Amino acid sequence: MKRNIYLKKKSLEEAREIVSSEIVSLIHLETERIPVIRSLGRVIAEPLFAKISSPPFHCAAMDGIVVKAENTYGATEESPKSLLINKEVFFVNTGNPIPNGMDAVIMIEDVHLIDSGRVEIREAAYPWQHIRAIGEDMIATEMVFPENHKITPYDLGALLASGGHEVRVWKKPKVLILPTGSELLEPERINFSKSDLASGIIESNSYVLSGLIVEDGGDPIRHPVVEDKPQKIKEALLAHDKTVDLILIIAGSSAGSEDYTRSIIEESGEVFVHGISMMPGKPTLMGRFKDRPIIGIPGYPVSAIIAYEALVRPVLYQSLHLMEIERPKIKAYPTRKIASKLGTEEFLRVKVGKVGEKFFATPLSRGSGIITSLTKADGMIRIPALAEGLDENEETEIELLKPVGEILNTVVMVGSHDLSLDILANLLGRFYPPIFLSSHPVGSLGGILAIKKGICHIAGTHLLDPQTGEYNFPYIHHYLNGMDVKVIHLVQREQGLIVQRRNPKKIKGLEDLLRNDVFFINRQKGSGTRILLDHTLKALSLDPNQIQGYGKEEFTHMAVASTVASGRVDAGLAILSAARAMSLDFIPVAKERYDLIIPSLYFGDEKMSKVMEVIRSDEFKETVQRMGGYDISRTGEELLDCCVRNEECGI
Amino acid sequence: MKRNIYLKKKSLEEAREIVSSEIVSLIHLETERIPVIRSLGRVIAEPLFAKISSPPFHCAAMDGIVVKAENTYGATEESPKSLLINKEVFFVNTGNPIPNGMDAVIMIEDVHLIDSGRVEIREAAYPWQHIRAIGEDMIATEMVFPENHKITPYDLGALLASGGHEVRVWKKPKVLILPTGSELLEPERINFSKSDLASGIIESNSYVLSGLIVEDGGDPIRHPVVEDKPQKIKEALLAHDKTVDLILIIAGSSAGSEDYTRSIIEESGEVFVHGISMMPGKPTLMGRFKDRPIIGIPGYPVSAIIAYEALVRPVLYQSLHLMEIERPKIKAYPTRKIASKLGTEEFLRVKVGKVGEKFFATPLSRGSGIITSLTKADGMIRIPALAEGLDENEETEIELLKPVGEILNTVVMVGSHDLSLDILANLLGRFYPPIFLSSHPVGSLGGILAIKKGICHIAGTHLLDPQTGEYNFPYIHHYLNGMDVKVIHLVQREQGLIVQRRNPKKIKGLEDLLRNDVFFINRQKGSGTRILLDHTLKALSLDPNQIQGYGKEEFTHMAVASTVASGRVDAGLAILSAARAMSLDFIPVAKERYDLIIPSLYFGDEKMSKVMEVIRSDEFKETVQRMGGYDISRTGEELLDCCVRNEECGI
Repeated sequence: MKRNIYLKKKSLEEAREIVSSEIVSLIHLETERIPVIRSLGRVIAEPLFAKISSPPFHCAAMDGIVVKAENTYGATEESPKSLLINKEVFFVNTGNPIPNGMDAVIMIEDVHLIDSGRVEIREAAYPWQHIRAIGEDMIATEMVFPENHKITPYDLGALLASGGHEVRVWKKPKVLILPTGSELLEPERINFSKSDLASGIIESNSYVLSGLIVEDGGDPIRHPVVEDKPQKIKEALLAHDKTVDLILIIAGSSAGSEDYTRSIIEESGEVFVHGISMMPGKPTLMGRFKDRPIIGIPGYPVSAIIAYEALVRPVLYQSLHLMEIERPKIKAYPTRKIASKLGTEEFLRVKVGKVGEKFFATPLSRGSGIITSLTKADGMIRIPALAEGLDENEETEIELLKPVGEILNTVVMVGSHDLSLDILANLLGRFYPPIFLSSHPVGSLGGILAIKKGICHIAGTHLLDPQTGEYNFPYIHHYLNGMDVKVIHLVQREQGLIVQRRNPKKIKGLEDLLRNDVFFINRQKGSGTRILLDHTLKALSLDPNQIQGYGKEEFTHMAVASTVASGRVDAGLAILSAARAMSLDFIPVAKERYDLIIPSLYFGDEKMSKVMEVIRSDEFKETVQRMGGYDISRTGEELLDCCVRNEECGI
Repeated sequence: MKRNIYLKKKSLEEAREIVSSEIVSLIHLETERIPVIRSLGRVIAEPLFAKISSPPFHCAAMDGIVVKAENTYGATEESPKSLLINKEVFFVNTGNPIPNGMDAVIMIEDVHLIDSGRVEIREAAYPWQHIRAIGEDMIATEMVFPENHKITPYDLGALLASGGHEVRVWKKPKVLILPTGSELLEPERINFSKSDLASGIIESNSYVLSGLIVEDGGDPIRHPVVEDKPQKIKEALLAHDKTVDLILIIAGSSAGSEDYTRSIIEESGEVFVHGISMMPGKPTLMGRFKDRPIIGIPGYPVSAIIAYEALVRPVLYQSLHLMEIERPKIKAYPTRKIASKLGTEEFLRVKVGKVGEKFFATPLSRGSGIITSLTKADGMIRIPALAEGLDENEETEIELLKPVGEILNTVVMVGSHDLSLDILANLLGRFYPPIFLSSHPVGSLGGILAIKKGICHIAGTHLLDPQTGEYNFPYIHHYLNGMDVKVIHLVQREQGLIVQRRNPKKIKGLEDLLRNDVFFINRQKGSGTRILLDHTLKALSLDPNQIQGYGKEEFTHMAVASTVASGRVDAGLAILSAARAMSLDFIPVAKERYDLIIPSLYFGDEKMSKVMEVIRSDEFKETVQRMGGYDISRTGEELLDCCVRNEECGI
């Protein structure tokens, strides 16, 4: 008789119930006996009893002599007693057994050797003094660990001391990982030439899942990439279905795709769930292939990980009878309002930082293809299916992906992006304990507004005031009026047009952007680069509306360079180092000042001192200079508005 | 020039400063290049930059057709557009590159095949729809990870997708572990005959330390046990000092011992610290052997672990440039006042349970030889050097050794000990999620008082009222007057005299305890067994003062049996199952009723339902019965005072 088949989209909660009721019940782990000394992290499959007591006999707890206590009664400083060696007293070291008839140990420090045959003692011993009684720690036959206990390093001590030599443990759940997709390249066999990389995507999900499975106590078996052909997929499954406990098949289960996974499973088993109202991770599938549980994991990397953690990890823990470990949680304020789809549980990745007394969470990319939204994340917000999003002023719970100690040691920087910030981040990590730099590229104005809102420690800006030609200070006066901030000069840098290698369109300056055959990529409004562009166009009396692509925006210098490199456009305004990084040509347009705005109150902070120490170090300056396009002659100086205005110390 | 030599006892804080200033600076890890796919958990030794962008080209984000958006403009349900396959449109799968000149993907669900040459679309596409742009996730040359980053499973995805094939990581710190002690037996080579185990102690510290080192990212190299001979120890050190990064030498560094470790180190290097004001772990030593850092680890298992965690773990984390991960903390009330030595930082191991709304911490053995005080511990209280202990009503911070989820799923039982509780604990662990039973043997009366104080969920008691001959209820009325509790019958069990195998002293009953040649071991005051003994002695008009050993107490049945088995005494009063477990003889004295007292308010609790479910299960009853000496005919019944009194349902 066929059981219920779940075909409609399920909530995550329903899906997890199916994990327990359908998937886990298909797994029947065997046990194996292994040496105790190789059992770390394994799960005991039967209650474990002490074979011997620990200590196994009454033994000396100190180095010294063993005596019969009553032979020492009456001994004092004034009237010491002398006792015969090897007759009335015996020398023992810690751990030595107490000879029959003896019942006390006197510490070596309190023993006075008279001659080779006698010792003198000046204080009476009491019975059982400095003796560890047999079974003081564990008594033979007592239960040392119940079944389903996971062996820690401490436990090795108890297992060995109670006479354990081997231990019966659950075999690790064997998990077959089957990556499918004709476009996938095997990372081990990539030829890093254009031909391979021009059409293929590097397969990485299977390795990520393998790592997670190892951490969760399973035994991953990675199958090489299988083409998107039902027959090949079926063959791969049939070759392994008898030897593994669980099958993960990656990709091929999304609703719009050719969806081989589902039909293959339906043909040789049944589908319990297809589609879960979560994001990322929607096109997840759970079922049975023959009598083996199978989970169809979506192909996008973030979806794959979320699906694994929400559904596969519980399978492993439950089949090993272990409780799942919850991530530590903290409360934080979102740095902006976040809308979310009603009816779908969302796993939102966030950077977390503590600014002042509050924790703030900044959402990272929500795209399910953006693996860096997980590698950079400090935590995850679960937006429940019945919520329409999060409010800025609504403190919300964050599941932490990193230790809170790292978050407390993080300097939060918001604003314009500059490549020297990576160098800063890297050097900050060399301190002990390391300082982390979390940097959010939202443009110069976004940085200043973040300072105003109190959600960052540092803003990075290069904002030209078209009226005065001054950098940054006019904006500080306008937006941060009354706030006590310091301005630290980071770099002078060269902005210019990034164009194709060898400049095939012969672009010489901004004027050429108006040409019919030139396509441009712009930066977002509020970014310093955009303001610089608009200012310069105006000064040259060029009409932005005549520039093809003026309306299309990217958010960082590197994104602009990358768009040019892709051949999609001919030019973009960005810094020299971005052009160099992508081996593109560069036509200088202007020099600009990139400064850091830092509220004065953070200057007492240890973290901020380290930031200043790095910025002012030779290593930082030299590494920045090597990227090209930077002037670091006054890097690290504090700029004062009056000086800049008076051009006494202006840069 | 010799540096400062620290010879006086140091505080732990001072010792940790020496770790950073002296020990870590002697470690110079090398780097190695390893394949990314085998780099999980390793620490990156240089900043890592993307080799290729991810995705490496503009690619389809969906399965479907790729088009030039402007070719679709104007398409609606009413006036669809038809486009030529392989000319105006191309079929693509997710991840396929977008052909030159195309700029939008239409999902396969929205594509209507007219014939083999044409498709029809009924909605216009907008440019870049369903396309993942080159570098959307990572842009070639951008920094993917800074140096000193520890690679997680997620990170494997970013490393592979950005074209990483190999990665330069720090070599794992190699740690030599040198166990010393002539009394030590190699666990791999033990002959479990009397001869080996009669004089030797099983060496286990080195395996515990190995496990901890592996978890902390190091590479442990265990040396076989070395005898307590300076020459042998020196030879072992000289054979390895050039190939390892850190040396741990176990035992031989306590102040009262023959103290080879210190003199050996002084001879070939220097001693930075000897003696740390912490407990356990005082006789720890830190120094330099030639140019290698060396740490002398105390020989008692708990001391060894505490010394490792306080001083060696920081060395490993610092040499790998990683932040140490703090244990999660909660606040709990100690179940009793705890005195502590002024001037010494104590690491007190505790069981933690949540009873009602509060967390309570019950101290475990403070002995540094009791490894089970760590394996059973849920947490650790650090009593600072300047405190004289902890008060019962003083909420105190607990560093958790187990996930808080386990603690919340723990039923706290206090009172008399019975071997059936181990069976109960084991069976509770089979539920999912598992229920944990934490049982504190403090005697029957201690259990009742714990219920009164509200610090446990269940008390186990077998208290005979000498006046009425009734069990438990008279005590409940006296001590818990007014509290709403239920009494659940666990077992009837046989108490009797446990004597040596084949009863060489021919003991027949309690009368024989008064004999001159018979030595007895008693149970502690307030235990049901002690009350039973006193009651029975009185009934038989026997004078307790004439019993040799009446004043010496043990706390559990198994401890009594073990004391008899050791030959130290001839008899003790305990349950039959304890005699059987130690293969001793048993002379029945009385049957008694062992009940569980449970405040009624805990009966709504899921955990308590599971406890009742197990107690009433056949498997529990049958397993208990197999131990012998138990009557389980009414196990699990709720007893009512009136019934018991009226003997209607009395047991």
